Amino acid sequence: MRDLVKNLKYVFEPTSVAIIGASNTPNKLGNVLMKNFTEGGYGGNVIPVNPKYETISAKRCYPAIDSVPGKIDCAIIATPAETVPDVLEKCGQKGIRGAIVLSSGFGESGKTELENKLREVAERHDIACIGPNCLGVLNPYNHVDSIFLPMYKMERPKPGSISFITQSGGVGTCIVDVAAHYSVGFSRFVSYGNGAVINEVDLLEYFAEDKKTQEIVLYLEGTKDGRRLLEVMKWANKEKPIIALKAGKYGGALKAAKSHTGNLAGNYMAYKAAFRQAKITEAESLDELFNFVKIFRQPLPKGRRIMVITNGGGLGVLAADAMEENGLFLANPKEETLQKCKAAVPSYATVSNPLDMTADATVEGYATVVDAVMDDDGIDGVILMALLQTPNLDERMLDVLIKASDDRRKPIVAVAVGGTYTDAKRKILDGRGVPTYGAPFSAVRAMKKFCEYSLTSNCKKCMISR
Amino acid sequence: MRDLVKNLKYVFEPTSVAIIGASNTPNKLGNVLMKNFTEGGYGGNVIPVNPKYETISAKRCYPAIDSVPGKIDCAIIATPAETVPDVLEKCGQKGIRGAIVLSSGFGESGKTELENKLREVAERHDIACIGPNCLGVLNPYNHVDSIFLPMYKMERPKPGSISFITQSGGVGTCIVDVAAHYSVGFSRFVSYGNGAVINEVDLLEYFAEDKKTQEIVLYLEGTKDGRRLLEVMKWANKEKPIIALKAGKYGGALKAAKSHTGNLAGNYMAYKAAFRQAKITEAESLDELFNFVKIFRQPLPKGRRIMVITNGGGLGVLAADAMEENGLFLANPKEETLQKCKAAVPSYATVSNPLDMTADATVEGYATVVDAVMDDDGIDGVILMALLQTPNLDERMLDVLIKASDDRRKPIVAVAVGGTYTDAKRKILDGRGVPTYGAPFSAVRAMKKFCEYSLTSNCKKCMISR
Repeated sequence: MRDLVKNLKYVFEPTSVAIIGASNTPNKLGNVLMKNFTEGGYGGNVIPVNPKYETISAKRCYPAIDSVPGKIDCAIIATPAETVPDVLEKCGQKGIRGAIVLSSGFGESGKTELENKLREVAERHDIACIGPNCLGVLNPYNHVDSIFLPMYKMERPKPGSISFITQSGGVGTCIVDVAAHYSVGFSRFVSYGNGAVINEVDLLEYFAEDKKTQEIVLYLEGTKDGRRLLEVMKWANKEKPIIALKAGKYGGALKAAKSHTGNLAGNYMAYKAAFRQAKITEAESLDELFNFVKIFRQPLPKGRRIMVITNGGGLGVLAADAMEENGLFLANPKEETLQKCKAAVPSYATVSNPLDMTADATVEGYATVVDAVMDDDGIDGVILMALLQTPNLDERMLDVLIKASDDRRKPIVAVAVGGTYTDAKRKILDGRGVPTYGAPFSAVRAMKKFCEYSLTSNCKKCMISR
Repeated sequence: MRDLVKNLKYVFEPTSVAIIGASNTPNKLGNVLMKNFTEGGYGGNVIPVNPKYETISAKRCYPAIDSVPGKIDCAIIATPAETVPDVLEKCGQKGIRGAIVLSSGFGESGKTELENKLREVAERHDIACIGPNCLGVLNPYNHVDSIFLPMYKMERPKPGSISFITQSGGVGTCIVDVAAHYSVGFSRFVSYGNGAVINEVDLLEYFAEDKKTQEIVLYLEGTKDGRRLLEVMKWANKEKPIIALKAGKYGGALKAAKSHTGNLAGNYMAYKAAFRQAKITEAESLDELFNFVKIFRQPLPKGRRIMVITNGGGLGVLAADAMEENGLFLANPKEETLQKCKAAVPSYATVSNPLDMTADATVEGYATVVDAVMDDDGIDGVILMALLQTPNLDERMLDVLIKASDDRRKPIVAVAVGGTYTDAKRKILDGRGVPTYGAPFSAVRAMKKFCEYSLTSNCKKCMISR
């Protein structure tokens, strides 16, 4: 790992941060940044830098970075593009080794030379520099947060195990906001924009060794170093599952990607082949990126034989269809399992797979059935679809699911489709590590990808489990 | 139309309802039903029937239907299966012509004879009988509501234009709850279960002529009369768009469908061919069913040339990819349109399609761009993806979208992905008739299906528009 990449620790875990271009004007980028750090829970030292002000957010403001006393770990730069290389030069001279350049107006607007200059400065000083033209970094563990979107508009996720690398700030915003909404925890988020210095390959390398990171999500439009990307993906995916979405696959989208982050998106077939070769999990849409990553905290499935349990018959039928389309099999439960299930469902229910417990299913019935199914080694995974709207199912149903997930005997996912009431329950389940989906199809797709990973990838844990 | 089908007016618009099997025990089906009618806003006469009680919900309770004085339009029956044919016989003798049988334990549990008996009684008295083994009916206009799921667990949609026919109560619950959550209005909902008397074909026929119904959604596991289904679909789809989801496509799911509503789900290829022949819109999953129907209130597109507008570049790239995969084209805006757009976006933004207005886009900028695009007859439809999390976009952004949709110059859909803040905005937009989606892919799929319908179906309005 290049020294410059190792210095990413100053970006993700800085004990002091200088905000260059800090501002007193509400809603301006430099003001939102100050608020993030002073009101967001960051415990380190925050130093505003701007010649226009004496103080910002009751903190002494310095005219330039070289006038700031003491050591600084990370500089967050939000000054006009043409000033950035000089600002970074001064940061380097001061010994700052982490930087986030939020400003745009570089390669993506044709200013290639300016971007080259920025890279030259960063590399000469070994500065791990994120950006330019990006949202920067969010670390829910220490509240480092350079995302310039107001907190009331975009929720911040709780600490967790997912690290998310995104070339697009907008796509990153969506995923982080949705994840936070459903209480899915993140370890780190990084929007790297043009990737002039630190790019997706560096970040993959860094997160593969990062202790807080257990799963890696990658949104990618294009790379400047395909060969190294493949090499690092191959290696990193052995340590931690990588879920990737490649955007800019075809003509019109390729052009759009070029003007978006200044990267040529390249031939999709080459990316697809690289993903396959590295055995990483490819998502085909934004939803899938989020749907897939949630399941990777579950125990690894040992096969593709899935049990479907529901109290809404139609949902079972839909799940069975989706399984057929996705190469999963309806497990054949053992006679013993079927007997236990029979005792737990209404007499007029048909005990098979999918198991339709009918709308009269009770929480106790579900508990018995889930336990029986978890004990059956002819079953590799469970999709439980609870119509929480039925009168019999109360909040104890959540305990049944959380317990089954915590037991870690085999992977279990939930499907809960509905409005306000059901959505609140989904948040609790997702927050407690039970991957919960808004449709049978999404759950099946996630289970399929998880099985694929467990059964065919070269991940170390998978090799042991097989 | 059979007289019996015409009598569905007594089911959907009854001036008086008898609840047979009404109960005073909280959470029991007969109790939830009473609450629905006495507390839900129903304006007609509600009569509880049960020999066990003197009064229920402060209303006089009658021991049997033949002891109730005066005329009754509709009987809702929730007594044990084996009693139902006799109860219905008495209803018939009393001149009741509408009935909803919620009880289960008929064909789906192998009690074919009991179901045949029920059918015989209903047909002899010309009773439009829904069920058995179903949730029955919801009419948001007059609050007829036999859905036995508590209102705090399952929201009821506001009055609107969509009629939803579902064989599965569970699937129906999900869709209605989600629709209500996003303020999408329904005209009628009917879960017909085993369809012993009134089936999906009868309901299609009835809704095709129903004045409040503008779009028809159909969830189907199997039909007993394929030939008539095809014939009625062909005819009904000329009047109003039909969006259908066929469940029970393959082996395991077929078996599940059989035990679910007692219908053989049949050969999926035959259904698919019938859908094509009738030129109706097929959804491939539960999400799609809901995603597709929302767009049909928009003006018909005259072609497949779509303009994509966003303030999140990555979203534009993803939409362009999805369009390529779904046979839609990125429109080439006229020079005049491009000039107007150029004046409305930041100087460093690239004006093309997708149009990335950048994260600095303003509400005024969006308003100008949308107006210019709406005026360009080289553009057939608009997908507007607003990252509502950016500091510049406030609630006035909703007005821009609602105005563009109300103008009815060409179809416009929105994409808004995020957490609590964004979700609240989605509800407002959907509620005001702007179809709003949680991912670029979903919006593109809906637009594709809408174009297909407009350009190739035999719907009367489409024929005029072409």
